[in-house]
Amino acid sequence: MAASLESLFRARSVALVGATDRSIWSSAAHANFARIGFEGRVHVVNRKGGMVHGLAAATSCAAIGEPVDAALVMVPEAAIPEAFADLRAAGIRNAVMLTSGFAEIGAEGAARQAALLAEARAQGVTLLGPNCLGFINYADRVPIWTTQPPLPVLPGGAIGVVSQSGATAGFIAAFAHRQGMGLSYQISTGNEADVNVAQVVDFLVDDPATRVIGLFLETVHEAGTLAAAARRALAAGKPIVAIKIGASETAARAAAAHTGSLVGDDRVFEAACRQLGMIRVPSIEALVFTAGLLAQGGPIRKRGVGLVSISGGVCEMAADRAEEAGVPVPALAPETVAALRAVLPPFGTPNNPLDVTGGAMLDPALFERSLAPLGTDPSLGLLACFMDVPDTAEEVASYRGTIIRAIGAGFCAAGLPAVLLSVLPRPVTEAGRALLAETGITYFGSGVPEGLAAIGRALAWSARQEAGLAQAAMPPAADARPRTEHATLAYLATQGVPAIPQHLAADAAAAVAAARRIGGPVAIKLASPDIAHKSDIGGVLLNLEGDAAVADGFARIMASLRAARPEARVEGVVVAPMRAGGVELFVGMLRDPLWGPAIAVGLGGVWVEALRDTSLRLLPVTPGEVLEMLAELRGARLLDGYRGSPGIDRPLAAEAVARIGDAALALGPGLAALEVNPLLAGPDGCEALDALAVWEE
Amino acid sequence: MAASLESLFRARSVALVGATDRSIWSSAAHANFARIGFEGRVHVVNRKGGMVHGLAAATSCAAIGEPVDAALVMVPEAAIPEAFADLRAAGIRNAVMLTSGFAEIGAEGAARQAALLAEARAQGVTLLGPNCLGFINYADRVPIWTTQPPLPVLPGGAIGVVSQSGATAGFIAAFAHRQGMGLSYQISTGNEADVNVAQVVDFLVDDPATRVIGLFLETVHEAGTLAAAARRALAAGKPIVAIKIGASETAARAAAAHTGSLVGDDRVFEAACRQLGMIRVPSIEALVFTAGLLAQGGPIRKRGVGLVSISGGVCEMAADRAEEAGVPVPALAPETVAALRAVLPPFGTPNNPLDVTGGAMLDPALFERSLAPLGTDPSLGLLACFMDVPDTAEEVASYRGTIIRAIGAGFCAAGLPAVLLSVLPRPVTEAGRALLAETGITYFGSGVPEGLAAIGRALAWSARQEAGLAQAAMPPAADARPRTEHATLAYLATQGVPAIPQHLAADAAAAVAAARRIGGPVAIKLASPDIAHKSDIGGVLLNLEGDAAVADGFARIMASLRAARPEARVEGVVVAPMRAGGVELFVGMLRDPLWGPAIAVGLGGVWVEALRDTSLRLLPVTPGEVLEMLAELRGARLLDGYRGSPGIDRPLAAEAVARIGDAALALGPGLAALEVNPLLAGPDGCEALDALAVWEE
Repeated sequence: MAASLESLFRARSVALVGATDRSIWSSAAHANFARIGFEGRVHVVNRKGGMVHGLAAATSCAAIGEPVDAALVMVPEAAIPEAFADLRAAGIRNAVMLTSGFAEIGAEGAARQAALLAEARAQGVTLLGPNCLGFINYADRVPIWTTQPPLPVLPGGAIGVVSQSGATAGFIAAFAHRQGMGLSYQISTGNEADVNVAQVVDFLVDDPATRVIGLFLETVHEAGTLAAAARRALAAGKPIVAIKIGASETAARAAAAHTGSLVGDDRVFEAACRQLGMIRVPSIEALVFTAGLLAQGGPIRKRGVGLVSISGGVCEMAADRAEEAGVPVPALAPETVAALRAVLPPFGTPNNPLDVTGGAMLDPALFERSLAPLGTDPSLGLLACFMDVPDTAEEVASYRGTIIRAIGAGFCAAGLPAVLLSVLPRPVTEAGRALLAETGITYFGSGVPEGLAAIGRALAWSARQEAGLAQAAMPPAADARPRTEHATLAYLATQGVPAIPQHLAADAAAAVAAARRIGGPVAIKLASPDIAHKSDIGGVLLNLEGDAAVADGFARIMASLRAARPEARVEGVVVAPMRAGGVELFVGMLRDPLWGPAIAVGLGGVWVEALRDTSLRLLPVTPGEVLEMLAELRGARLLDGYRGSPGIDRPLAAEAVARIGDAALALGPGLAALEVNPLLAGPDGCEALDALAVWEE
Repeated sequence: MAASLESLFRARSVALVGATDRSIWSSAAHANFARIGFEGRVHVVNRKGGMVHGLAAATSCAAIGEPVDAALVMVPEAAIPEAFADLRAAGIRNAVMLTSGFAEIGAEGAARQAALLAEARAQGVTLLGPNCLGFINYADRVPIWTTQPPLPVLPGGAIGVVSQSGATAGFIAAFAHRQGMGLSYQISTGNEADVNVAQVVDFLVDDPATRVIGLFLETVHEAGTLAAAARRALAAGKPIVAIKIGASETAARAAAAHTGSLVGDDRVFEAACRQLGMIRVPSIEALVFTAGLLAQGGPIRKRGVGLVSISGGVCEMAADRAEEAGVPVPALAPETVAALRAVLPPFGTPNNPLDVTGGAMLDPALFERSLAPLGTDPSLGLLACFMDVPDTAEEVASYRGTIIRAIGAGFCAAGLPAVLLSVLPRPVTEAGRALLAETGITYFGSGVPEGLAAIGRALAWSARQEAGLAQAAMPPAADARPRTEHATLAYLATQGVPAIPQHLAADAAAAVAAARRIGGPVAIKLASPDIAHKSDIGGVLLNLEGDAAVADGFARIMASLRAARPEARVEGVVVAPMRAGGVELFVGMLRDPLWGPAIAVGLGGVWVEALRDTSLRLLPVTPGEVLEMLAELRGARLLDGYRGSPGIDRPLAAEAVARIGDAALALGPGLAALEVNPLLAGPDGCEALDALAVWEE
């Protein structure tokens, strides 16, 4: 990125390069200046001159004769070099590029894109695109956008949308608009030759109009920048709500077909979201409602939610969906129950969810009287009421409008954060928006499941935001390059990882001596830098006791090795005490091509090998983060003991895992993977029994 | 139910009992006859006579002076006895009862409801309600319904909706209408004193207008009737789509507050759905779209789905959501790829999902040319295209209408079942409906995730319907009442369940003799009818070998028993061979208060005890159903062997489980529970090692 994004997104003069009345993109881009209310200067550029979009076209940017902040480049791919020369001549430092035919079409296009970026860098141009639809800054009314946005612009938009797919940015904007919500920005980053989503997020963290950032991602080009921006956003209380495609192989195939994007390992992105407090959502609906809720209310400080409806059936469905969405619906306090009993009809029951009863059809004020007492319930931090806002002025004037007003009065009387949700998905009309503005109600036409899912995400984000980010420090580099298992264990021990004591013995006599020093039964394992899976070739013997058994074991292992892998180098055997009991954990560091080093933790044995039950985070991790990882495991209950066997000390195990992560990081980028399997954990601590480091070639 | 529901739901003359202009319910009910186009006779009854709803009111039903098929009873609860006497006098055999104040308000109301039912039975009246909103038979235009339905009635409605909550029936009807779908019936069963959901489902299975049945359930009053109707429905190819509340404790609490319903064990209902081919859905949205899709298309005979959009971003999101929804999106055959390459623009990529590219904005026929070749792809059975149908006549006349027409032409050319889905949730307007009727397109304004979820459910139901129901036969009753473990195992062996050989030994000498007969190491276990968990009191010894060890073991068990439970009755010990290896399964029969006997299968040990990983079905089960149960287990992969240990023979294990289920059923309703734990399974068969029967007091 050549310069700050400020001068691009707040451009005060814009040139449409390659403007022509024959192009729907050019026509839309030109019309958008008036539609959005751009107050700066607009120039059209066409090398043939003449009248375009009703304006006299300059034959080049240089011919405009006054400074231009940004150019929208719409010329065909072949004319790009000429256009860039013109930008240089005109001194234009920002370009938004609609033109396609670059990385999205394969290797040849990728080469063109590399050349384009080099040119942009050389002349100090900040480039959005290519293959993008542009952006609209609604807050400052700067539209450099090539299709028609939803109109009229709704005031006070607070959601900044950034999308690698331009059409998807348009879908998000259209759906938000249909639901009565405006945006602060919609930005299409296209192929991201220069400006990418991570940089735009970083910009929006500081944008005063943007209270929530919404993302549509196919890939992540600068994971480190995104991570840093996400940390700043969480600290600033500005949620990031992200759709990231690629959970399925089919989507990965589709992304390759669409833009040639590498979608990356979905589990690593998921881990990054958990760690950075980004809210991952499965759909545009979920993005819009979650972002809308957080844009209205900010963090929610008490987790209990009071659910209210005029229908018992809706109460019941909402209760089921709330549990699924992680929305706590606590029972009401006795005082709340008493206060409700005084206002409900005799056939009503004070409860959460609260069925105000069909009596509210005849007596809408029942809503106000029922909502008010919920405000003082000690366990409630948010009220969610289910009722459709009417569509037409006629309906607003009917009892249906009266009910909404009563709900608004009830929300006010309760004095808690509150949201009105439709019973079923539906748009918000102009008449509906006016009623909502009058009553001050926050409303989403989401229906029950989407609305509760959005509340659940907002609650989870609020808790995360309150807890703050755990940011582990990068460990200092270690000057080591362990290759064998015993060397790796020894290295881990130097880094503060509890590891089983081991003795390298080059011959049978040394093995016997080591076993004597240890006392009791021992395990002996082949030590060879060439053999990764020793037990496969008979290289591991357990529970040997006494000099003869140990000496015999040494001989058997050597015989096995000679039979199976006669060429392998041999250092001897490792002798270690036997361990029994406890819970086997698996700890593995891996390196993701987009996000870098990450760590997986799981229960050992069948859990990791057959069931792939692991939890993942980016490195470094704090012990607190590892505790979260352990809790996420499907087999987590086994950590608490089973059939009388004791559980593990989770904090001590978490500390050990975090140190393993630090130890792996300290080995630098040459380390491809590091595995501790098992880390044997028990009630009094844990111990790494085996470890393996794999280095890049 | 006193008589067939035919005469109720197809009533040709109706009396509104307790009709008054002051009631919104009475006014709505009266207006609905004209709104829906009822062609029969309507009478209003008010004991004061006079004009009501513009008609001369009869002072009683008896005073009407002509036969009446059905009465809508709206009088207050106190006037019910008088109303029933009047029904008798008038010879009216069907009553729909709006009046509330019965079982839903507690014990006193429940007693009144019991008296009401007794009276109805005595005079041969079929009673819908009380506390219900009535029903609308759209197919025959018979509305006995007390609120305003969505208008105009959409022709050809094929979804029959039955709901225990009247308001919810209304929400379903309204949402379906907003999405452009009509219903065949909407029926509110209220408290179900007489007519219940199960009976109505049974009626609708034979109703020609109803192609799909939609349910909203709080409880199930006649599980056997519902199961039988569901089996008939599946055989008839008529899907049942059901919302059943009560997955959460909060919903159970809400249902108790709303109607006093016992929601039952949610896992048992879930098991019943799997077994009976009922489609359980989480929301009204899901019900309407799933029912709508199946009402249009019927069963889908090939599972692969081709996804098509004008946006690469939508393709990617759809691919991810498809995987989540169980919708296979197979790669295209080479011939299809070649055919698509010939019609797509050079920058397009033939793929599934298929991005027809933004080129279709300028050239809508690209949709037709791209959809056509998908019709011959060998793996596709359904096409799903994503595009919003326009709202206004003006939009229909624009390129947006042209695109929809091109999609319709493409669907025709492809010749496959096909559905158009909106990109984001939105209603279907009158102009939209007209365009859809013109093009013959099946369209849902569902948005991507709801639309794909509906397709996934339709595919699963289609496969289920094609496979047919496995209906195990009820086993003949067995004249046994085993109480001890060895008696239970012996009983199971008589029923064809492979069981470990056991020898009951009353003293040490008999135990030694038994061990000699067995040969090799043995296990000995206390035999006492009073002790359920023998190992807790030292009543189990394993791996005893040799006369001395067995005799000593006998003495130790008796000593332990005397110390722990001196009063317990003793039969001696059971001697059995030791078994090793294999996979331990847990098999448990239990009795559900609503659905009756059911069976749970899980992996033994930690899986069932700590992780509650079991799969459930109603009894009887076929071995084929047990294979499905095994596949559902989270730990199912462990059945296929692990680290070189062999897997189990699943069919043999399934056979044994089905026989355990039959053996439990044969013991009759006095059996509360029967547990086989473990059923030890291996590559060559399986064997019950231990069993316990629990009897009702």
